[in-house]
Amino acid sequence: MRIAILTIGNELMSGRIADTNSSFIAREINLQGWRVEAMMSVEDNFDSIKSRLNYLLALADVVICTGGLGPTADDITTEAIAQAFGLPLFTDENVLNHIKEIFTARNLVWIENNAKQAMFPQGAEIIPNNVGTAAGFTLKAKGKLIFVIPGVPWETQKMLPEGVLPILRREFPQNDQFIAKQTIKTFGLSEAAVDKSLMDIDFAALGVNIGFYPVFPENHLVLVSRQNTLEEAQNKLKIAKDEVSARLNKYIFSYGEETLEEIVAGLLKEKKLTIAVAESCTGGLITSRLTDIAGSSEYLERAAVTYSNAAKISLLGVPAQIIEKHGAVSEETAKLMAEGVRKLAGTDLGLASTGIAGPTGGSTEKPVGTVYLALSDKTKTICRHHVFRWDRKRNKMLFSQAALLMLKRYLRGEA
Amino acid sequence: MRIAILTIGNELMSGRIADTNSSFIAREINLQGWRVEAMMSVEDNFDSIKSRLNYLLALADVVICTGGLGPTADDITTEAIAQAFGLPLFTDENVLNHIKEIFTARNLVWIENNAKQAMFPQGAEIIPNNVGTAAGFTLKAKGKLIFVIPGVPWETQKMLPEGVLPILRREFPQNDQFIAKQTIKTFGLSEAAVDKSLMDIDFAALGVNIGFYPVFPENHLVLVSRQNTLEEAQNKLKIAKDEVSARLNKYIFSYGEETLEEIVAGLLKEKKLTIAVAESCTGGLITSRLTDIAGSSEYLERAAVTYSNAAKISLLGVPAQIIEKHGAVSEETAKLMAEGVRKLAGTDLGLASTGIAGPTGGSTEKPVGTVYLALSDKTKTICRHHVFRWDRKRNKMLFSQAALLMLKRYLRGEA
Repeated sequence: MRIAILTIGNELMSGRIADTNSSFIAREINLQGWRVEAMMSVEDNFDSIKSRLNYLLALADVVICTGGLGPTADDITTEAIAQAFGLPLFTDENVLNHIKEIFTARNLVWIENNAKQAMFPQGAEIIPNNVGTAAGFTLKAKGKLIFVIPGVPWETQKMLPEGVLPILRREFPQNDQFIAKQTIKTFGLSEAAVDKSLMDIDFAALGVNIGFYPVFPENHLVLVSRQNTLEEAQNKLKIAKDEVSARLNKYIFSYGEETLEEIVAGLLKEKKLTIAVAESCTGGLITSRLTDIAGSSEYLERAAVTYSNAAKISLLGVPAQIIEKHGAVSEETAKLMAEGVRKLAGTDLGLASTGIAGPTGGSTEKPVGTVYLALSDKTKTICRHHVFRWDRKRNKMLFSQAALLMLKRYLRGEA
Repeated sequence: MRIAILTIGNELMSGRIADTNSSFIAREINLQGWRVEAMMSVEDNFDSIKSRLNYLLALADVVICTGGLGPTADDITTEAIAQAFGLPLFTDENVLNHIKEIFTARNLVWIENNAKQAMFPQGAEIIPNNVGTAAGFTLKAKGKLIFVIPGVPWETQKMLPEGVLPILRREFPQNDQFIAKQTIKTFGLSEAAVDKSLMDIDFAALGVNIGFYPVFPENHLVLVSRQNTLEEAQNKLKIAKDEVSARLNKYIFSYGEETLEEIVAGLLKEKKLTIAVAESCTGGLITSRLTDIAGSSEYLERAAVTYSNAAKISLLGVPAQIIEKHGAVSEETAKLMAEGVRKLAGTDLGLASTGIAGPTGGSTEKPVGTVYLALSDKTKTICRHHVFRWDRKRNKMLFSQAALLMLKRYLRGEA
């Protein structure tokens, strides 16, 4: 079953508002195991709406439309769709009363053009709107199924799962195709290098599709197995997953949907460990990522962004002579920063970064992009050294990524 | 002249990645005074790309395509377009060398499938990519003009204005060739509220186009005046700018292209002031933003992320009884944090945040989204209180935004 999405509104075509509904709907549809055949946007214009709708009806079995259901003159979606199928409009008294109740509850003056929101093409099945005045509807015509729901994102996000998907499942019971999916998250290889590594795997023969999703600084892969039985879908998926894993092994950091921040937070909470962070070149970014997770006060005690040498010395107790001898950007300094912040905070762990984000400050020995990351617990301190080659902001992101991965490996007992 | 936009990628059709390129391109096209006739997304599939392209070529004079130019097997845009017009592919040696240079500079191993990015349909004019390996191209065929550029947003955002628009202007010369532009950056009003405030301004009568660019948490406006003489362009632009300024007044924080971070960094350097930061709810984000600017060690001495009360007490010297009496999230604690970190670091200024990012931890008196921001110098400490109503990550971003704006106003003598 093929689905098309048509988002309607002048604000989309002018670029004033980014269309977030298409990707939301596409995601929900894919999660149901259905396929999105086409996504289009169109302005609030009778001829354009009708012409785009006819094009999409030729491509797909179902067209989901959003937008243009407001009470104002420029909102013409319902009328355009009625015209497209030569259907008259009728007023639904229940919807009309619901809208009038909302006006009363919000102390708004009733204006007659609002009654337009209670009008629907003949034969339409109404999809109630519990968060606004604009009800949606669905219509069977020319052997196709058309849905129309509001374009205000939070209304779309309520009405699609609550109103549209149940009708879709009713009209297209799924029993002939089974889907199994696997996400694989990698870090440290370019998209091209990932692709090259996997080139000898015959995904087509397995009936498995592979998708590449670069989400800087990570590269995500998604394997989708579509088969005639669930068992077959899962078996073929496992074969494909094992083939990928064997090739990308050390670059894979997750097989789940969780973010790296969520993984690290989960491990710290599970092991009931506390942490303190000492940041130089990352400027607070490691800590900011660690605190993006709700409940981070359970594991994060404090962090110090010790940008100056004076701060490294006075706050973290890094001896001045160590900085003089080895430099602020060195394994020695990184380790003493991690130990220093752990002792200062009285936590189980100390994590530290020192490096050169750029664009200046590099040398032949320690070029821009160099970072030393150290992790200290009560018995030992480990250090890793990397050189990244991007601009300042992306180097900072890569440094923080490497730091969180180092922490993750330690917590999983892999480092 | 009618323009269509075709964004290409499985990640768009699966809803995994939201399509931000369509709205970006539509905005830029509208600012040039041209019209977007259709916007579509399509998966990385030969037949689908060819069929959608043919449909759009029937609707428009120009089709701008993004995406599918990577080196991997699923990136087939160039080949699909060559097939659509029955054109053979050729390798451009300059592009090939450019890609190889990037590999050398980034210390990456050359893999032969990357050479694919140097292949173009016969007759194509190449659009160089200065920020990545994927060059774009333009092609005249069947009386139409087709553009193909990468889909990575920051590459699209460079190559559209620098590569595509100049060719469009060359191929479709406009009579009113004199252009004046004005950026206006706002914070604190929703896009809809900005739009509503400006509704009574007759931009069309002035010959001025307005573009909305939401860059969370900011809303940017761009006014583009296109007239027959430069003087007229500038005069009409000034009228429009004054109308906008009168309505959005206190929400405008900049009329320039610099980021807020750059503005603050410039003011700190200009006034030769040093700063230290004490962060609680922002978790390091304020400091990370301050250190996104090259040379930030000139003004940032250190920062403390004092997540626990113990850290606020022991590191910043906030008295335990103040936290007990007023709470960690209070004006009193925020002010003492700012003063404490300033004294600890020996800097001219101390900036502090304490609040509730959410999703839990709020109360009736201090709901989720509450933040107290304090700024201390040698003579006084000021505090501001805000309540934002977003999710955790966006609340953190809003808190940091309000903190940087507070700092900017102080440095400009406005607070």
